[in-house]
Amino acid sequence: RQAQNVVHFLVEDWCMSALLGIITAVLSVGMDVAIEVLQHAHVVMYDKMREISAYLAFSQWIAHITILTALSAVFCQIISKQAVGSGIPEVKVIMHGFKMDNYLTLRTLVAKMFGLTLAMGGGLPIGKEGPFVHMGAIVATLLSKLTATCQYSAFFSNEGREMEMLSSGCAVGIACTFSAPIGAVLYAIESTSKYFAVKNYWRGFLAATCSAIIFRFANFFVTAAQSGTITAFYQTRFPTDPFLIEELPVFLLLGLLSGFMGALFIFMHRKISHFRSKNKIFKLIFRNNFLSFTVFMAIVVGLLTYPEGMGRYFAGRLTFRETMADFFNNCTWITNDSRRCPESTLQHWTGGPDGGVSIFLSLILYYFVYFFLVAICISINVPAGVFVPSFIIGACGGRLVGELMLVLFPEGMRGPGGPPIHPGLYAVVGAAAYTAAVTHTLSVAVIICELTGQLAPILPVLIAMLMGNAVCKFLQPSIYESIIRIKK
Amino acid sequence: RQAQNVVHFLVEDWCMSALLGIITAVLSVGMDVAIEVLQHAHVVMYDKMREISAYLAFSQWIAHITILTALSAVFCQIISKQAVGSGIPEVKVIMHGFKMDNYLTLRTLVAKMFGLTLAMGGGLPIGKEGPFVHMGAIVATLLSKLTATCQYSAFFSNEGREMEMLSSGCAVGIACTFSAPIGAVLYAIESTSKYFAVKNYWRGFLAATCSAIIFRFANFFVTAAQSGTITAFYQTRFPTDPFLIEELPVFLLLGLLSGFMGALFIFMHRKISHFRSKNKIFKLIFRNNFLSFTVFMAIVVGLLTYPEGMGRYFAGRLTFRETMADFFNNCTWITNDSRRCPESTLQHWTGGPDGGVSIFLSLILYYFVYFFLVAICISINVPAGVFVPSFIIGACGGRLVGELMLVLFPEGMRGPGGPPIHPGLYAVVGAAAYTAAVTHTLSVAVIICELTGQLAPILPVLIAMLMGNAVCKFLQPSIYESIIRIKK
Repeated sequence: RQAQNVVHFLVEDWCMSALLGIITAVLSVGMDVAIEVLQHAHVVMYDKMREISAYLAFSQWIAHITILTALSAVFCQIISKQAVGSGIPEVKVIMHGFKMDNYLTLRTLVAKMFGLTLAMGGGLPIGKEGPFVHMGAIVATLLSKLTATCQYSAFFSNEGREMEMLSSGCAVGIACTFSAPIGAVLYAIESTSKYFAVKNYWRGFLAATCSAIIFRFANFFVTAAQSGTITAFYQTRFPTDPFLIEELPVFLLLGLLSGFMGALFIFMHRKISHFRSKNKIFKLIFRNNFLSFTVFMAIVVGLLTYPEGMGRYFAGRLTFRETMADFFNNCTWITNDSRRCPESTLQHWTGGPDGGVSIFLSLILYYFVYFFLVAICISINVPAGVFVPSFIIGACGGRLVGELMLVLFPEGMRGPGGPPIHPGLYAVVGAAAYTAAVTHTLSVAVIICELTGQLAPILPVLIAMLMGNAVCKFLQPSIYESIIRIKK
Repeated sequence: RQAQNVVHFLVEDWCMSALLGIITAVLSVGMDVAIEVLQHAHVVMYDKMREISAYLAFSQWIAHITILTALSAVFCQIISKQAVGSGIPEVKVIMHGFKMDNYLTLRTLVAKMFGLTLAMGGGLPIGKEGPFVHMGAIVATLLSKLTATCQYSAFFSNEGREMEMLSSGCAVGIACTFSAPIGAVLYAIESTSKYFAVKNYWRGFLAATCSAIIFRFANFFVTAAQSGTITAFYQTRFPTDPFLIEELPVFLLLGLLSGFMGALFIFMHRKISHFRSKNKIFKLIFRNNFLSFTVFMAIVVGLLTYPEGMGRYFAGRLTFRETMADFFNNCTWITNDSRRCPESTLQHWTGGPDGGVSIFLSLILYYFVYFFLVAICISINVPAGVFVPSFIIGACGGRLVGELMLVLFPEGMRGPGGPPIHPGLYAVVGAAAYTAAVTHTLSVAVIICELTGQLAPILPVLIAMLMGNAVCKFLQPSIYESIIRIKK
């Protein structure tokens, strides 16, 4: 019997967790490549068209996003309506013991995969971590069912184990989004569970590690040019002591501000949802059709980001990944010394080679445009996550504060010769604080360290994150809770 | 009422957690400095004596450790017997709901502080994380009691809150040992709780962050030379891609081996305890006196580490902190190219300037000598932790494997021109795997990343750690569980 238990343990427990990690990672690598190809095509086609005619380029830019978004919405509508939205709120509800039909089926998995790829490939400002969590949870459920039909069914029949697998599935989903195995496990626990059995901790780790290995292998075969999102790794290059004690109060303030903005974001998202379901004029225009408002928003996003129009003023041409790299970059946007970013980077934010747009204007515009766009786009009829957009918005706010600090203290807070101010560090801190506020999680601190590959900013990140989290917790429920309440 | 709750929340909840972090950090900074001074004095005095006479030096070396250890034991005996040992097992028992008298009193705190400072200052191969956890738990309890006598007593009277404070106290204790705030919170949860309420997560983070800030401030006033343990930060300098996929199986194997050795360690520790309590000859020699065996072991450690005797062969002169720096160093001990460590480092392991001892012999001796010494020393009558020694033993094993790999593949696994092998990375991985095995915790992965300030080794660390943890879990209870069972 002892021997049989060992076999069970090895084959089923270990293999299941490992398989879960591997399968989800393979799926997500495939999606990452597809999304990258689509996003790349958007810009390349646009540039080609512009050589012919500006009107053609304009229509191509709008058409790409509109058609792909519409396809995504139609796809989800036909295959599985449950694929719409983030997925984390639903998984949370399921993990609290409620049954929700069709949320964890193969159909939904397929719909979620294609829907997300199309919507993100189109260029909507949405994230992939929520859908990935949902996908991970589905893979986990399917694996559980598969073994339940096998011989040792008794071993698998208890509900606790299923929940455990679900939790591992969530962890794997996050691990695949950020290639951040440790933060992923913690985030999955925080965002889905109320109580948590320490004994089962290792399953999530094992699954996340397996998917990290797959990602590592993928780097072999897919070059970085093809797949920015596979490496999904914004290696920062701060010195080992990137901040002064004098700067800590500024980080505290940044955390406070991020907390308020996070609460405002959640509040606004809820108001918009109410408006959409209550307002008569809105209903008259868009009817109750699943497609109309979704397509409308796709066109709005296309119009706003059109690189020769509004998009000039807030880097509309860039994908989230590229913007993030700019924000986290350890160079400055306003000084004129050796620390200045290369011109190619700066041109993203000054409206092109002959732009002359102020980077402060760009950053402020970027912040508010995406603040509103994201709040709306995460509740249209496509699969859409909120974590990555929050990250970007937070990083933008942080960068703004960082560059302002640089205006105030061009030589650093201790004057000439002292350590300089790193605006990129403020972006990292801002991203952590704002995301911690919006999602009410603390594991963001771990995720951001894994994402940037550096632990030097940990102290400012923790301070700002605790502040932002506390403020937002005090004012509003988390965005996931808020979505659950809206759907009720 | 709402307003009153806010005040309660801000003043008591936040302030309590922050105070807990600050007080424990201040205590631990003070102890760190004192320990460093004592350890430094040991070596400096020894060198001075050697100029006069070798006999004098020898007796000074033995006397220092014996006297300080005896003082520590006497101190604990007089002030509070509960201060003896690690403290984590007892805190674990208390957190599971059992009452243990006098374990969380001011007397015990005082005894633990002085006892640990003396024992570690003397040079016993013991760690400080267990006692620090105990201290954190005591500070938390005292703070709870303090507020309980205040006005808002009803608010504080529930047991859940006390447990919460205890858990934060543990987190702070670990955070102070390693200046690793995130890993500390997780380690405290893993090593003390079975189930864990996610909602209370942030308290530990806040407390740990506050102590991290104190440590940061301490760096202002205390220079690194005075206080290696304050910074307690073994910044490694690996490249961002320090390993190849081909090396992953080696890391897996290293994890497996570490798991077996960890299980052996726990087994041996238990056998030694049984021997001490059962064997008649042992009892006849040492009686039931608290001091006799403790002093005997202090003399044994002194004899073994005596730098001109046995100590020549395994760097007996070095403190754990210095050995750790050597193990983690990103240079090699055997190649003759630019990657070779500076001679001053190598001389620690080749028996001095004219030593000629093989570094492999040194490493193997170091491994086994400390393997046995630590197993005995953590259960003599002084405060003593097991985490840091495990770290060192694991790092030693890892370094050994790393240097062996370098012998097998002097040009790296892809041959000349390919990426080289970093033996320091193997030391990091070995440390994580062995410690994860001995303590049955996974948060070691986070702690080691925070300790080394690099996230690049995360994948090998996770793989080896999961392996080591699984193997040891399968063969033995954790060292803390084992101690609880022995004491029962």
